[in-house]
Formats: sequence, C-alpha cells, structure tokens
Amino acid sequence: MSTTNGTASEKTIYLGAFAHCTSQQEVEICEAGAIGVDSDGKIAFIERDIGDIPAYELCERQQGWEKAKIVEIKDQGFFFPGFIDTHIHASQYPNSGIFGKSTLLDWLNTYTFPLESSFTDLAKAQRIYARVVNRTLSHGTTTACYYATVHVEATNLLSDICLSKGQRAFVGRVCMDQLSPDYYRDESAETAIQATEACIAHVGKIDPKHHLITPIITPRFAPSCSEGCLNALGKLAQQTGLPIQTHISENKSEIELVAEMFPSSKSYTDVYDKAGLLNAKTILAHAVHLSPEERALIRSRDAKISHCPASNTALTSGAAPVRTLLDEGLTVGLGTDVSGGYSPSILEEARQAILVSRHVAMVDGDAAKLSTEEALWLATRGGAKVVGLESRVGGFEVGMDWDAQMISLDVVSEDGEMDEAENKGPVDVFMWESWSDRLNKWFYGGDDRNTAAVWVKGRLVHTTPKYRG
Amino acid sequence: MSTTNGTASEKTIYLGAFAHCTSQQEVEICEAGAIGVDSDGKIAFIERDIGDIPAYELCERQQGWEKAKIVEIKDQGFFFPGFIDTHIHASQYPNSGIFGKSTLLDWLNTYTFPLESSFTDLAKAQRIYARVVNRTLSHGTTTACYYATVHVEATNLLSDICLSKGQRAFVGRVCMDQLSPDYYRDESAETAIQATEACIAHVGKIDPKHHLITPIITPRFAPSCSEGCLNALGKLAQQTGLPIQTHISENKSEIELVAEMFPSSKSYTDVYDKAGLLNAKTILAHAVHLSPEERALIRSRDAKISHCPASNTALTSGAAPVRTLLDEGLTVGLGTDVSGGYSPSILEEARQAILVSRHVAMVDGDAAKLSTEEALWLATRGGAKVVGLESRVGGFEVGMDWDAQMISLDVVSEDGEMDEAENKGPVDVFMWESWSDRLNKWFYGGDDRNTAAVWVKGRLVHTTPKYRG
Repeated sequence: MSTTNGTASEKTIYLGAFAHCTSQQEVEICEAGAIGVDSDGKIAFIERDIGDIPAYELCERQQGWEKAKIVEIKDQGFFFPGFIDTHIHASQYPNSGIFGKSTLLDWLNTYTFPLESSFTDLAKAQRIYARVVNRTLSHGTTTACYYATVHVEATNLLSDICLSKGQRAFVGRVCMDQLSPDYYRDESAETAIQATEACIAHVGKIDPKHHLITPIITPRFAPSCSEGCLNALGKLAQQTGLPIQTHISENKSEIELVAEMFPSSKSYTDVYDKAGLLNAKTILAHAVHLSPEERALIRSRDAKISHCPASNTALTSGAAPVRTLLDEGLTVGLGTDVSGGYSPSILEEARQAILVSRHVAMVDGDAAKLSTEEALWLATRGGAKVVGLESRVGGFEVGMDWDAQMISLDVVSEDGEMDEAENKGPVDVFMWESWSDRLNKWFYGGDDRNTAAVWVKGRLVHTTPKYRG
Repeated sequence: MSTTNGTASEKTIYLGAFAHCTSQQEVEICEAGAIGVDSDGKIAFIERDIGDIPAYELCERQQGWEKAKIVEIKDQGFFFPGFIDTHIHASQYPNSGIFGKSTLLDWLNTYTFPLESSFTDLAKAQRIYARVVNRTLSHGTTTACYYATVHVEATNLLSDICLSKGQRAFVGRVCMDQLSPDYYRDESAETAIQATEACIAHVGKIDPKHHLITPIITPRFAPSCSEGCLNALGKLAQQTGLPIQTHISENKSEIELVAEMFPSSKSYTDVYDKAGLLNAKTILAHAVHLSPEERALIRSRDAKISHCPASNTALTSGAAPVRTLLDEGLTVGLGTDVSGGYSPSILEEARQAILVSRHVAMVDGDAAKLSTEEALWLATRGGAKVVGLESRVGGFEVGMDWDAQMISLDVVSEDGEMDEAENKGPVDVFMWESWSDRLNKWFYGGDDRNTAAVWVKGRLVHTTPKYRG
C-alpha cells in the first residue's frame, strides 16, 4: 500500500474520534469523525460528526470515494497529528540516559565526541540510524530535525534511511572546525563547506523535490565554528535557501565562552546574525538564557526556537522561559535533544515542557504554567511552524498532509485484572472519563504502546500488533 | 509454586547479574552472581562471582541445594531489589494525569473528593484496587504504603487484594472529620477511630502476624482533622504500636491554612507532634517547605519522609530540598503520590527525583544534584527505612527477604531493525556499554516492559511474556 516516494496509493477514510490543536490554547476533539485522505496523502475532506452512519454509506455519499479503504480506531482512542521533533542528535542515540552529573561542556568531551567520531564505521551508523528512525516513528514522530555527525557518508546514510522508512526529515551534516578534539573536527572552514555541499547534493539525488528529506545547514554551535566557517555557512544558506539549525544559549558557561571567543559581537545571538545565519528558516535549539535584546533580535529575523526541557533539566542547563518566548511572539516547538535529553519521545518531551513550566512558575508566578493543550500545540502546530511546514502538517485541515498517529487506549476490565499475555500500554481508561480527561490520561501516562499506527503523507510507516490484530 | 501466606515453597537459585545499593552513593553490580533463596523466601547465600560454573555444579556445591530450582536472567539484564512506594493513594488511581492547572486545595475539591467518595460501591473498589495492585507490581513495587478512603469495607477489600496478589502493603483507612465536603467525611472523631479500629481488626484476621499486610493509622492531613481526632489517633498509635502516615508542608496555602487552624501550635510539624503522631513509625509525605526548626523536630522524633517529586511539580507545590534533608540526617524514601503524581511507577519517580534536584541545583548550586545511585537508593534502601523494614527488604543480603525484580534489557539487532511482533521495551542496549551505563540506560529509559518478573518474599507475583517465553 505504499510507494517509495512516500505517498499513499489508495484513497482512505479514517474513521473514529480525532483530536488536534486549533489554537495555542485549544484542542478540538471530534468523537465521531471521518477524514478522507486521497491517493497523494492529502486530506480531501473532514466530517466532524458522522453519528452512526455505517462505513459503506459514508463512502457512497462522498463522490469518488465509493471504493475507499476504511481504517477504524482500535479500542478507545483517537487520531492525532504526528509529532514534530525539532532537535534531535541521531548519532548520539546510543548514549541516551548516560550523562551522570555532567553539564554541557564536559558532557560533550566525555560522552558525545567519542561516540560521534565513530561514525566512520558505516555498519555502526546503519545500526544506530535505523534504530533511531524506527524508535522515533514508533513514538509518533513524523517529522524530525536531525543532527548527524561530520561524516558525509554516514550523514547520507541517515537521509537514505529516513527516505526508505518514510519519515519526514531535515538531515544536517555537523560543521565544527575549532575548539573540538583533534580526533573529531573539520580540518578547515573550506572542508566543512565542501562536506556540507556533498550532503546537499546527495539529497538532491535521492529526493530532488524534498518530498520527505531536506538538507539542513548545521553549524554545531558558535564555539565550535570559526568566524570563517560561520560566514561561509551563512553564504551557503543564502545561496541555497536551505534551512539552518544550531544551538543557542543553553548553558551559562557556554554563553561566557561565546562572549570570550566573539568579543566583537554584542551577544550570542548577534554572532549568528552577523554571519547571516539568523533568518526565518533558522532553528535555534535551547534558548534558555536569552536576554530581552536577543529575543527581540530573534523575533525581528523571524528565527525559530526548539525548546528542549528534558535535556535542559538533565544537564542542569536551566529552565527556559517558554511563556515569555510565546508572549513575545516567538515561534516555539519541542526537541528531544537526544542524548542531552534521555528520551526519543516527543510525548515525554511535552510532559517535561509542562513540568519545567511548573518550576518556572514556582519562581515567576502561575502565568508561566503551560497547559496540556499548549504542550500538545508545541509538539504539533508549533513544531510545524518551526520547520516551516505549518501549511502541510501539525493538524487536520483539508489540503494538509496525513501525517498522523492512531492513539489507542485500553479499557480496564470489570474485575481490574490485566491480560499478562499482551502488554497493552500504561494508560488505564475506566470509560467514565470525558474525552478531555482521556486526552490528559494519554498525555501524562502514555507511551509508544499507545501509538498503534503512524502515517506520513498517507503512507503507513509504523504499526503495532494492536493495529494489525 | 506459591502459597497463600506469600512465601515461596521451593528453594531457588537466581543466576546472573545483580545490582543493589550498598550505600547512599554506591550501587554494587555483580556481573555473574548467584543468590540462593530458601523456601521461606529468605536469602540464604550470595555468590558474587561464579564465573562460568554451570548451574548443576553450583547446586551441588551448596549443601542442601542440589534440587534447587534455577531462575536465570533473560536477555541482558540483572536482578534488582523491589521498589518501595512510601506514599500512594490507591483510590485516586483512576484520576492519574487529571489535574489541569490546579494546585493542592482546589485539586482536592475538584477531582479527588468526588472520586474517593464513590468507594461505597464495592464493585468499583474491586475494579480500581485490583488494577492498582496489578499495575504497581508490574512496575516492580514490592512494598506500598496505601491511602484508601474513609470506607471500611473498601479499605478491607484493598488489604484482601494486596494479600492475595502477594504485595507487601501498609493499608490506611483515611480519617477526616472536618474541612471536608459534607458528602465525604467522618461524622466525628469517634467514628473515625471506630472505623480505623475496624480496619485494623480486619487485617488482624487475614494476616495476624502482618507477614504482608500492616494497617497504618492515617489522618489525611492536619486541616481535615480536628484536634480531637488527631489526639485520638495519636493515642491509638501509642496503644497499638502501628505506623502512621500523613501529609506535611506540601503547599504554601496549605501551610497558611494550618497556621490559621492550629494557632496554638508552633508549626505544621508541631501539630502532629502535640497529638502524639510524630514518632519513628511516622511517614510524612511531601515535606517541601519545612523550616529548619521543623526538620530538627522531625529528626529528633526519628520520623520519616516520603519525597514525591512528580506530584510536587505537577501540582506546582514546590521543589523539596532533598539534599538538605539527607545531609541533616533525615530518612527519605520515594512516593508516587498517585494521583497528585501522574504515574504509579517508582522508576519514573526516581527519575523525577533527579530532575527536581537539578531544578533545586539551578538555584542552590550543584551540591543539590542527586545521582542515579542516590535516586535508586531512595527507591529501595531509603524506602525500606521509611517503612521500618530496612533489615528485611531494599537490598540483597543474607537473611533478607527476596523482594526483587528481574530487569531485562534488549540488545539492538545488527541492522537496527525492530521486531514489530513483540514490543520489547524502550531501552536499547548496543553491548558496548559498561554495566554502569546499562544501569543508567534502564534508569532513564526503562519502564514496566523491562521488569520481566517480580517476587515478594520469594513468591513470584508478576511476570511478563518475556519471562515466561
């Protein structure tokens, strides 16, 4: 039922409850919906209340959909837009959960660079990258912004894997020509640019129209790039119109380091701005300690922010003031930041976004608290805006792509006993809950077991036994 | 293989790696261990390095163990002590994840009291309590301190269920004779005491020696108990020698309320102390905002603290200063505080303990950070001290009970593909990790799928398909 260009070949009607964010504060839940997806993977129609109409009648009343395939919700559950991970280091995945009490700069040297440098080994790269893409798909991530490593071949392999598995991906070859260990760095700004161009050319061959895969220009972060390298990458971005991803203002020592290394820049943000790396296609990860002036500059350039709460807490980087960022009109999405973050799940990241906002609220007051609706908005619509795909993914609208997950929730048996033969996932629904309460139970308690199936552009890219059974 | 008094009937040797905390800062990991458990469920011997000895030879060299059953680690993994949940409201389980942006006092009225009051319905109580015990066992919780409701019959049902499923439990009938809704409260201090005595008597019948089940005296928290009620419960504790559980200093509004309601007491802690409710068998949940004087008083009475980080963050109660509590010599364990906490998993709670300690460190400095080892210590040895069972559970020592879980970690296939037929859990091991790194991967990434089997007093009380397969 799928083709290699990542689109569905069969008209399909998705039947049952669906939920998606209609604004930053609101989740719309339609209990008896029907969404028709055409053979290009685009949403052709949405019915919000079909009542008790049997499936065949529904097919007949939509002209041209008489022979459409029907996909129904399993158990109690709902369709939900796929998640967007706006910041994940695919190459660091094997280190998930390994950081001890370290903070950013020693963590890089102790855990990260040794692992990343080993991606000269393509068999190892295959094993890790295939697992990352399988895992993120299983968690409902339909779009991911990946950092790979400095290695061209391994980075191209990651693009190949995303394309073949059908995940929408921005794949970045990491540039770092200074302040990095001798065993793991670009020789010069020139070689960094050449290698980046080679990765761009590879995607040009495998997915020339960027249906699924887009190369993304990736200066690791200011301290590991010379001004020459940053300027050349800024020029490349301008020439190609490609997106940019990098890190900003994650940790206080890092900020001091940037101030020392770039004395002619007014701020960390200004370093990127001066190099032509701050524009509407720039994704800035972390943004924990930005000054008001930096936030204003980011806003004036319409650059985007990837909020990575799990990582920021795990590495004691700080608590990003998301409410302030949103109130000031900045565009924010979520990033797992594996392996600074310990989980490849955007659902877990959304929970952490709420929990971190509670810690901000303990200091700054209740207004800082994010709601479940807002966290889900960041995970879908917000992320879509961060990657510039808000007209195509992140919600259910006619004309948008079917990037979606089927959420399945099990009902507690009358005697409370569990079926030990099949692990049905951690969420227990008693069926007296409102739909909003069910959504919250999934939000706070759910995991990949509740993501029964995942589609990208209408193509089925992940299933669980529950979906197939 | 199990008997109704919750003990094993067969000598068993547990073979393979095991890990446990040997101090607050250290986890001992034995890669090739063997632990012999006698027919009473007690650890009879521990071998720390058996090398390549085949199982039959091991049986033969231990006199009297020639016919012992052998239980071997499945996949890559290790035996670990069962977790101890020192604070969980069994009756609130259906509300897990449902709290919106509320804080303690409005959360009680909006979500909690309406649910708890419905436990007059015993079929409903059966459904909920059976599910809670099944779930907590599946997460490796071998000992739990439960709050039930005010209802005697439903509370007794919870004791019955814990006993029959083989979970070690402290079961508390909740006392609340004031400042509670008319539809859900004790009529008077006298009826609160009578009902508590009825629950104590029930456990006296089903488990007279408290092999598994111990009644626990449970004033809900100071604001919902009159001084008469608190004093009477203090007297009952003195007469019976039974443990006590209650809440303390969770939320600033609650603390103000206590100060208003008990003007003759010097502090929240002093309210309990005056009533004879502060002794070495008292478990105080939360302890977020204690003054130095209160901490000194708690220490002088040797009362214990249940740290509930997930709940404290979710309800924006505050961040408990665990490092300070530990440095001052207080005894601390972990509590899920379902459903102020959103998860029944102590592993998740241990992660949250670390993350909350990072937020404390952002304000108070790096010394506040808890390590993985310390969080696991709180989840096992610390919890055991909190419930007064440190000589019997929480670690692996000769003479202690076999309250344990088998942790199973899957190895990533060479091509990185996943077996979609069987959900093997979220932790990916590549086999180049040290044992310490594997432990951390489980700690940060693991869930109930990694708890392949659970034993209490040598009795197998939970298994997964992985264990049985």
